[in-house]
Amino acid sequence: MVCMFDKVLLSEKVANNIKKLIIDNELQPGDKLSNEIELSKILNVSRSTIRESVKILVSMNILEIRRGKGTFVCEKPGIATDPLGVTFMNKKDLLLYLFETRLIIEPEIAALAAKRAKEKNVEALEVAFMKMEKDILEGKDHTETDMDFHNIIAKSSQNPIIKRIVPIINDCIKEGYLETKDIPESGEKVIYYHEKVLDAIKNKDEKAAKKYMKEHIENGMGQIRKK
Amino acid sequence: MVCMFDKVLLSEKVANNIKKLIIDNELQPGDKLSNEIELSKILNVSRSTIRESVKILVSMNILEIRRGKGTFVCEKPGIATDPLGVTFMNKKDLLLYLFETRLIIEPEIAALAAKRAKEKNVEALEVAFMKMEKDILEGKDHTETDMDFHNIIAKSSQNPIIKRIVPIINDCIKEGYLETKDIPESGEKVIYYHEKVLDAIKNKDEKAAKKYMKEHIENGMGQIRKK
Repeated sequence: MVCMFDKVLLSEKVANNIKKLIIDNELQPGDKLSNEIELSKILNVSRSTIRESVKILVSMNILEIRRGKGTFVCEKPGIATDPLGVTFMNKKDLLLYLFETRLIIEPEIAALAAKRAKEKNVEALEVAFMKMEKDILEGKDHTETDMDFHNIIAKSSQNPIIKRIVPIINDCIKEGYLETKDIPESGEKVIYYHEKVLDAIKNKDEKAAKKYMKEHIENGMGQIRKK
Repeated sequence: MVCMFDKVLLSEKVANNIKKLIIDNELQPGDKLSNEIELSKILNVSRSTIRESVKILVSMNILEIRRGKGTFVCEKPGIATDPLGVTFMNKKDLLLYLFETRLIIEPEIAALAAKRAKEKNVEALEVAFMKMEKDILEGKDHTETDMDFHNIIAKSSQNPIIKRIVPIINDCIKEGYLETKDIPESGEKVIYYHEKVLDAIKNKDEKAAKKYMKEHIENGMGQIRKK
């Protein structure tokens, strides 16, 4: 008799083997996985075991099933919807803590970006800046384009860990941005600081990038405190 | 006829309602959820819908099912096994990028800890330090106690975001620690810097905490580069 425990272990083992397959074949986020029949042949286990293993990898946010299309590597493998678990945090003061964290991380990242940004990063940053400026001047919500700007700076650091941490923090902040967007002076100041940071990165001026990013986030914190 | 699409929407809606129940009832990580029958009464849907919704929350790492015991709020709700998705990153230089990230974050956090650590934090930090020192002097692997030390400092910042980010980064680093632990001078230096940081936090000396944490991580980076 195959006991329950063995079965669990087998599907977990096979899940690890599928993970190895993904790595060895250098499958990228969004790439399609071989189908059940092929996987069952490659890994020499039953189709029902493959199905169990795929479920495990889906729950780990490594694979996703698109109905009628097949199984794919998640766009952000391993990254859960709420990786910091903020849904269950006490909302009181959360926004200030998020800004405190940004104040620690982002000025240094801006300096790294000034040092390492590639031409395509700077171009993407300029596009994001112009879109955001347009949104603000037209009185539209600029949350998304504002985030883009900061996420591109994180990308420009060329550090894959930083590139992933900043968007996670910014995703948590989205709601909070909505709270400050109706402050009249807010938009103007955002344009001012973003432009200063953009220029500093263009000029490879690490000190200025750090300085203006710091002031930008401190300014945001000040506005939250005033509310 | 209830079409598939409606059914998916219903179980997702109910999943959100269960999430709200957890928040409203202030259930903490590890707390037990009401059983299927009770939930089905409270939320006024069938038991099979409750079952589907619980599955969704399990896949989001919010609930976990312990066989024969019931359904519980995850110990780290929302936090996936590999929230930064490092499993799928190019391993080359990953360790240096992890240390670069720590170099940005941890000195500032040490300063916050010096400012805000509560008595119980300092006590926990002293215990972690002594355990680590013992491990090193006895030639044992000190990876776990070393991590503990850094994670307690993050906790001492009293910032719930920082408290969650630091262990995530440190978890990614574990393998890397194993690579440096056999460097003879390494253990000695680790004891030296950890003691300096501990003293600075005890004395509420923000500057010293920042300075020694910075030197500690730079020292670690230097050892990785030498390898």
